[in-house]
Amino acid sequence: MIGSKLIAADPLASEGDDGYRLWLKYEAVTNAPVKTEYLRYTTFIGRSDKGEITQSASRELQMGLKNLLGKTVQETSSSAGRSGGILFRIEPGAAAAQPAEGYQVQLSGGNIVIVSRSEQGILYGTFALLRHLQMQRPIKNLSIASTPKVRYRMLNHWDNPDGTIERGYAGASLWKWYELPERVDPRYEDYARANASLGINGTVLNNVNASARFMSQEYIEKVAAIANVLRKYGIKTYLSVYFAAPKTLGGLATSDPLDPQVRAWWKEKVAQIYKEIPDFGGFLVKANSEGEPGPQDYGRTHADGANMLAEAFKAYDGIVVWRAFVYKADPNADRFKAAYEEFVPLDGKFDPKVIVQVKNGPIDFQPREPFSPLFGNMPKTPLGIEFQITQEYLGFATHAVYEAPIFKECLDSDTYVNGEGSTVAKVVDGSLHCYTRTLMAGVANTGNSQNWTGHPLAQANWYAFGRLSWDHELSSEQILQEWVALTLTRSEKASGHIAALMLRSREIYVNYNTPLGLSRPWMGVHFAPEPWQNKGSRPDWTAIYYHRADSSGIGFDRTASGSNALAQYKPQVQQQWNNPDRTPLPYLLWFHHVRWDQKLSTGRSLWQELCTRFYTGADSVLWMQQQWDLAKTSLDPMVFTDVAERLKVQRREAIWWRDAWVLYLQSLARQPIPAGFEPPKRTLEEVKQSVHVYLIR
Amino acid sequence: MIGSKLIAADPLASEGDDGYRLWLKYEAVTNAPVKTEYLRYTTFIGRSDKGEITQSASRELQMGLKNLLGKTVQETSSSAGRSGGILFRIEPGAAAAQPAEGYQVQLSGGNIVIVSRSEQGILYGTFALLRHLQMQRPIKNLSIASTPKVRYRMLNHWDNPDGTIERGYAGASLWKWYELPERVDPRYEDYARANASLGINGTVLNNVNASARFMSQEYIEKVAAIANVLRKYGIKTYLSVYFAAPKTLGGLATSDPLDPQVRAWWKEKVAQIYKEIPDFGGFLVKANSEGEPGPQDYGRTHADGANMLAEAFKAYDGIVVWRAFVYKADPNADRFKAAYEEFVPLDGKFDPKVIVQVKNGPIDFQPREPFSPLFGNMPKTPLGIEFQITQEYLGFATHAVYEAPIFKECLDSDTYVNGEGSTVAKVVDGSLHCYTRTLMAGVANTGNSQNWTGHPLAQANWYAFGRLSWDHELSSEQILQEWVALTLTRSEKASGHIAALMLRSREIYVNYNTPLGLSRPWMGVHFAPEPWQNKGSRPDWTAIYYHRADSSGIGFDRTASGSNALAQYKPQVQQQWNNPDRTPLPYLLWFHHVRWDQKLSTGRSLWQELCTRFYTGADSVLWMQQQWDLAKTSLDPMVFTDVAERLKVQRREAIWWRDAWVLYLQSLARQPIPAGFEPPKRTLEEVKQSVHVYLIR
Repeated sequence: MIGSKLIAADPLASEGDDGYRLWLKYEAVTNAPVKTEYLRYTTFIGRSDKGEITQSASRELQMGLKNLLGKTVQETSSSAGRSGGILFRIEPGAAAAQPAEGYQVQLSGGNIVIVSRSEQGILYGTFALLRHLQMQRPIKNLSIASTPKVRYRMLNHWDNPDGTIERGYAGASLWKWYELPERVDPRYEDYARANASLGINGTVLNNVNASARFMSQEYIEKVAAIANVLRKYGIKTYLSVYFAAPKTLGGLATSDPLDPQVRAWWKEKVAQIYKEIPDFGGFLVKANSEGEPGPQDYGRTHADGANMLAEAFKAYDGIVVWRAFVYKADPNADRFKAAYEEFVPLDGKFDPKVIVQVKNGPIDFQPREPFSPLFGNMPKTPLGIEFQITQEYLGFATHAVYEAPIFKECLDSDTYVNGEGSTVAKVVDGSLHCYTRTLMAGVANTGNSQNWTGHPLAQANWYAFGRLSWDHELSSEQILQEWVALTLTRSEKASGHIAALMLRSREIYVNYNTPLGLSRPWMGVHFAPEPWQNKGSRPDWTAIYYHRADSSGIGFDRTASGSNALAQYKPQVQQQWNNPDRTPLPYLLWFHHVRWDQKLSTGRSLWQELCTRFYTGADSVLWMQQQWDLAKTSLDPMVFTDVAERLKVQRREAIWWRDAWVLYLQSLARQPIPAGFEPPKRTLEEVKQSVHVYLIR
Repeated sequence: MIGSKLIAADPLASEGDDGYRLWLKYEAVTNAPVKTEYLRYTTFIGRSDKGEITQSASRELQMGLKNLLGKTVQETSSSAGRSGGILFRIEPGAAAAQPAEGYQVQLSGGNIVIVSRSEQGILYGTFALLRHLQMQRPIKNLSIASTPKVRYRMLNHWDNPDGTIERGYAGASLWKWYELPERVDPRYEDYARANASLGINGTVLNNVNASARFMSQEYIEKVAAIANVLRKYGIKTYLSVYFAAPKTLGGLATSDPLDPQVRAWWKEKVAQIYKEIPDFGGFLVKANSEGEPGPQDYGRTHADGANMLAEAFKAYDGIVVWRAFVYKADPNADRFKAAYEEFVPLDGKFDPKVIVQVKNGPIDFQPREPFSPLFGNMPKTPLGIEFQITQEYLGFATHAVYEAPIFKECLDSDTYVNGEGSTVAKVVDGSLHCYTRTLMAGVANTGNSQNWTGHPLAQANWYAFGRLSWDHELSSEQILQEWVALTLTRSEKASGHIAALMLRSREIYVNYNTPLGLSRPWMGVHFAPEPWQNKGSRPDWTAIYYHRADSSGIGFDRTASGSNALAQYKPQVQQQWNNPDRTPLPYLLWFHHVRWDQKLSTGRSLWQELCTRFYTGADSVLWMQQQWDLAKTSLDPMVFTDVAERLKVQRREAIWWRDAWVLYLQSLARQPIPAGFEPPKRTLEEVKQSVHVYLIR
């Protein structure tokens, strides 16, 4: 259990906080008056129902209070007339307007009372209370009420059956398939606790590039063993499916979604799953994308494929989540437009059990993207949003990038579909088009590293995604403040330095990596700079496809004179971005091919501005190091050293990125490095060679 | 640091021993008289030299005593005339006959004195003393003296630069290449401590299917950061090399070992490495094997390739370890004979800096193999032995197989090269042919799982390999007794049950997996039974190539009437195995094709005997479970549950193996299942389908 991991302070050893406990550390309350108040309200836990989820809540509370207050608190089912305790109260009738998972935590009759319509709400309220106590906030006037804005709050694991994780940078998979179902790793429960503490209520266990083996009885039993653990924390289990499984696993001649045998196979398969997992969540599907099979292999549409699966779920609660991440290898097309072109014509054709899951941006989790034009343009189809928590394009586990601002930037974008204020958030939470099935998914950054996420600060991204999936109105700052207090330090001064570092981290990364709306300077492993990459098995698998740099300038013209991808947005959005002079600099090269000598609003030419960003971005890592150092005395030494060393890597790699871009672009722009910036100490060839190292076997 | 990880006992949580501390737990001494005696001899640590290895020894001792006795022990450099302490005494002259790494631990002048010619010896003596104290043995008459029988005692990691491990079943790689060199994971030091405690003095960090990137300056710096940690514990760092690196990394037109440019490239490369790692250990090479490049690509011999690399090490201490694991895809050849045929003609042609590393058996780490006929047949070439600790063919991380008996069986085999008593051990330790460079290598079973090895009992295999690499005369029982006491329990009764379980575990596994000398019923991932496998990209990559089952019988005739591989052994060895009636049953089918109805020494026909082994092997897993349960009250609950659950998996899979073999062989032998054995509850087709699940994407 996360909360109970305590490391003895050994004077001889360099031990410290190994990060395993995440934000559930429940460190002893140090504020004496606050502690006195807490002790007064924690004399018992009143719980009258027998549900396994409230049992988890009660156990969590006992463990939390044990660590926070050094006190063993007993549970009782007969709390009538008593005060000074914490009561769980499930009131199916009360607050009927409120979603079942919502909760209220308040003082009543001398007790702290957690009220909800459901067991899950009690659990979420318990975690909210524990968060409150961990932050040493007063109980007097305690009143926390919250309801989730989105119904399906999910992690997507891109974990493979062999234990590897696609785009994972924190070790091997948490799921130990070869040991299941007999051996149930205790860590599964800590995983469930961490997620439930944020309000996450669903988990897709396996990679969207899915293995058919998860549809075998053998693997369904393994999955069921995990589901049995997650269920205790209100989390449903989902699986990614391989669309061609009827052929490869079932031995059928086809996987055509309109074939009756295929339909029967999936129906039978879903029934087989529900026999083992009565609360199974549903399927996630990547089809006809990047080589995966799909309905188009048989001349059918995505809706045909999704609806066939939805039909199989007819008798059950489960849903089908169908990914909109599709694009064809067309050299003349603009990948930006692909998902829209494919899916908008299908609006209204999906079964009500289908949610279409759309990545936040039109391309692929770049450090900065405009919002996907699909949002708002499928009013008859519930659109879920897919964020990437794992840092595929954000520096793996060696760069500190706090992602809440990326998520918020997209959610707060105005699509203008129903006039001003039609934000992506309102599309996603269903309020704009009255979707009842709403979904927010995050591609997980977890692995079996002892600290779960590799980079200690990357825990904040898991935390932020979870909190936002519950309430997208929380601010990046507020979430960060919580996370730092729960995880790193209660010192206000240190928190200030850490918050500064993290809140600026994304812009700093963008500056040295993809400033002014550049994108996808990666091929291969998405780690090393390769803006020069011009060979790929498909035209859109090169770097030059995206930045379109030449001797005249750089950027992708997506206005009417170019690919006209902009036309996929409402006119008000188009207006923001269709004129290079008015386009905000962060999005400039997303939409325009701009001349090297073009003067920008900063007073610099494009070339100068790019150089300035690359250089100041890399410089700013020094500032990040300084902020971290200033927090040192308030941090656990092991965590401090871990992050400090990673920041050194980040600094070195930021310079690498800077040099790669500057030298490569200089070969096209043929301009001098602006005065004041020391030219790279290496040649373009040398940088290429250093990148090559990461690409060879 | 391993020794300092203490988990608080939390009444609410299911926490316990997470296995991280391995055999370095230093749990409090509970025997009161013994503790009194220990306290008397631990009033100070006397250390007068300033070396970093004795500093590690002193730190380990302080940490150990802190945990064993609850006592902080100070180090002093001026211990003259004092008693009641532990003295480190480096005596370069003393015991000149003894290898520098040997040590003596004894009482002298009222002190415990650890004497050695070297710092490393002091470290090994310190670990021996700590082992002694952990086992609560008396200090009175203390006298431990030991010297290593083999000079290079190495782990081989088959770890890839992307963090995966070939044939690894304990998570991702320990080496975090993307974080290095700036971030040095504290775990590297615990890894070094664990190895040094056994006497291991070398580590090959990367897979023998090697990436050329380790030869880049960037990676050399990363490797150096690890080497800096290992050095403090007397462990040298080695690298596997990609033979074609001069081409793929260096950009040369060839990697021909006789090409002057190629020779110069390697020379320069080795110099570059020594600049960063002054005590670099050397190279390990897999060449012209399983698709890897090598000197034969240029019409040169293995000796040409190895000697070229040895030349590059001329000015340094480093060595070249060249693997003999080679075999060609010849349908008419016997893979058994390949390494011998390739290497024996090269005897005497290798540079003195080269050690040829030979797998224990002629094929590939099977559950039981005869010893490789190379041992004894290359008197002019130092032959190192390669064992596999990771359980590639021994049930991954779900089967308990204690491997010391496998290692010992090979080491104790008599080659008869110089008459009776010419054991493999004497070849390997150099005493038979006066090799001065002697080597024992083990393919590591470590990963980033918190308990290092996945299966808790697999820690014993790492331990056993290490102890045997130091002293191959230790018995399997003795090593096991130590390991159980240090790692699992001090209870004699429980130890008895665990020892029984583990000492029989290998024979039990062989019985349900590959009895009577069967081998290689695997393809694919080496996990699931596939004795029927008859298609492969090469003829020797099928299962039927190895067992040669047909309607008449089963087994590989390697006598004069068959492949005559037996002729590679000395006559006395041939005599053991050339007559099917006299061949010990464990080796029968290694050397003979035997009729199904052939009566064996057990009184049963071959078919009956095979069935009996498959069935009783699977049954015996129940007995293993029983033994484990009997030890329960003396075990940590978390460790108990972990192993208990894995034993359940093992039981299920043992039945799987049994059913696969019995049903498949029955389709050839056409004989009934012997009376008393319940026929499998599934058909051959159903078993095949269950295996298929593990082979599809």
